Amino acid sequence: MNIQTSVDTAAALSLPQPYLLFLGDATESGFAKTAYGLRDWAPEKCVGEYALPTATVSTGLPVLTPAEAAAKGARSVLIGIANRGGVIAPDWIPSLVEALEAGLDIVSGMHARLAEIPELATAAERLGRQLIDVRHPPLGLPVGTGRKRSGKRLLTVGTDCALGKKYTALALASAFAERGVDVDFRASGQTGIMIAGGGIPMDAVVSDFEAGAAETLSPDADPDHWDIVEGQGSLLHPAYAAVSLGLLHGSQPDVLVVCHQPGREEMLGMTGYAVPGIEETIELNLKLGSRTNPAIRCAGISFNTSHLEEEEAHALMASESERLGLPVADPIRGGEAFARLVDNCLA
Amino acid sequence: MNIQTSVDTAAALSLPQPYLLFLGDATESGFAKTAYGLRDWAPEKCVGEYALPTATVSTGLPVLTPAEAAAKGARSVLIGIANRGGVIAPDWIPSLVEALEAGLDIVSGMHARLAEIPELATAAERLGRQLIDVRHPPLGLPVGTGRKRSGKRLLTVGTDCALGKKYTALALASAFAERGVDVDFRASGQTGIMIAGGGIPMDAVVSDFEAGAAETLSPDADPDHWDIVEGQGSLLHPAYAAVSLGLLHGSQPDVLVVCHQPGREEMLGMTGYAVPGIEETIELNLKLGSRTNPAIRCAGISFNTSHLEEEEAHALMASESERLGLPVADPIRGGEAFARLVDNCLA
Repeated sequence: MNIQTSVDTAAALSLPQPYLLFLGDATESGFAKTAYGLRDWAPEKCVGEYALPTATVSTGLPVLTPAEAAAKGARSVLIGIANRGGVIAPDWIPSLVEALEAGLDIVSGMHARLAEIPELATAAERLGRQLIDVRHPPLGLPVGTGRKRSGKRLLTVGTDCALGKKYTALALASAFAERGVDVDFRASGQTGIMIAGGGIPMDAVVSDFEAGAAETLSPDADPDHWDIVEGQGSLLHPAYAAVSLGLLHGSQPDVLVVCHQPGREEMLGMTGYAVPGIEETIELNLKLGSRTNPAIRCAGISFNTSHLEEEEAHALMASESERLGLPVADPIRGGEAFARLVDNCLA
Repeated sequence: MNIQTSVDTAAALSLPQPYLLFLGDATESGFAKTAYGLRDWAPEKCVGEYALPTATVSTGLPVLTPAEAAAKGARSVLIGIANRGGVIAPDWIPSLVEALEAGLDIVSGMHARLAEIPELATAAERLGRQLIDVRHPPLGLPVGTGRKRSGKRLLTVGTDCALGKKYTALALASAFAERGVDVDFRASGQTGIMIAGGGIPMDAVVSDFEAGAAETLSPDADPDHWDIVEGQGSLLHPAYAAVSLGLLHGSQPDVLVVCHQPGREEMLGMTGYAVPGIEETIELNLKLGSRTNPAIRCAGISFNTSHLEEEEAHALMASESERLGLPVADPIRGGEAFARLVDNCLA
């Protein structure tokens, strides 16, 4: 896999790579999902892992000290933990200071700002190192213009949050690249940004600049170039639809892929809010997306079938594909169904 | 007129009133539109005006020094100017420091933060005065929940920006109050916030919290109470739709009033973007608004006919009302058409 992930826009974040993955004192693999995402999607950007002696979780990558990682070319230590509250534990700080002293910058997706931790701020200042908070958007984002940009764009959209929009975008970018297409994955959330090495955390952008940020994220490009933009939220989500609509308008996608988890009936954490239907989601995204790109079309559906048996999943995707008249595939299962989805995206 | 404008929510801004209106060195009335809006919509909250000797613009209110205004009960000096760039001119600063020394706080809707001007920061600190930037949202806004709140809500929406959503909301709040309805005007933009004495600048809220901010703006209320929420932007605006959708979802309005300027063909500042039709705007707002309030309905249309002759305006509104099957009125012209619109809002 060789996803091109350059972010060549002035206002988008750009991260120092490759990374040393920091696992803190994690003893549950669920908390290390940022590190796993990096290992799975950007292994060439990860020189190794680094943890406290009390940690029991591992990515399977080489265990390195910050000095060893720096000697192998690492440019930053990346906090690979996503714990409750997004806090940086006091126990981690000596290890992070050691990384700064070894010549590494720190990349974090936690809520807490690195520079607000005095020991880190002081050490970074003294050593001339960067403290990069991926959750905080770059300054100077413009208001949207609606101007049509050159190049082609695909956006993954969803019936809900947290059902595979990032994974689908990465898998499509990888499949496009395998077919020799000139493609960039454009990250719009923190884990995606770490994988790509750049991007804009769209949910952290001030609303007035949401569409403008999305315009910045996928700039003018060669006519045959594709940007595959990681989607966020859902137009029908009662809390996060503003993020989804700004991203849709500003991305001005030529192609949509709708992401869905069959069997999920209620939106995550939204009591009383049913997950909308696939047809309704397609129709609404096409309707609203056509405002900035009248040629928008839906190329197919990405199903998250991780909770289903192989046979059941394939049968369901086949019948849904028949019903909707569109390719339906699970990128994790891949196979012919996914190849048909990729075909239709590029058609 | 007696608009109730209390903002009793913890996270919303609350401004010290009444105001002394500051006109700086304005020589063009266009730049003083914030002051005019205050004079027109909240005269009981304005004790007078105050300007540099070079200013030629006047609101017609009594000319007072800060000390005289304070003696008459003023609690803040309000910058009534909206110049290009939203900057606080160096020439104004001695006058603003004089206001602080007279016991007044400063309220500003400029882009520049008051506290970033050293002379103002120092004087405010020394005197224990507040520097209030209305464009900057309060801290601690929550993520939306989608929970249905008690009380009734009306939201003004639009086919574009800057065509009368604030004016319409104020006029409806005034008309509701005249009929004895328990009503609050809920401001979502800087001028509205100054008029109301509180509110949330929705376009300055981080996208992830946009719907949650709108939920905060119109909290639970008595079953017969109405909140009239000032709308922002347009769902079909290529730059600002994220603001509009978050406000629509979070306001969960029972009633919409669609604002439109007949004859405007292109969206303001958006070359190539036609102003959408009224029917399309109604349909899209009802469709998306029904997500958080399935009982949502459109009660009518507010026309901005300031560019038309009286007779032409009335003929157009009558024919559009016939065509759409809904009341169509210009709140500035008032009359029977506006009374019918108010009737239908309360029906």
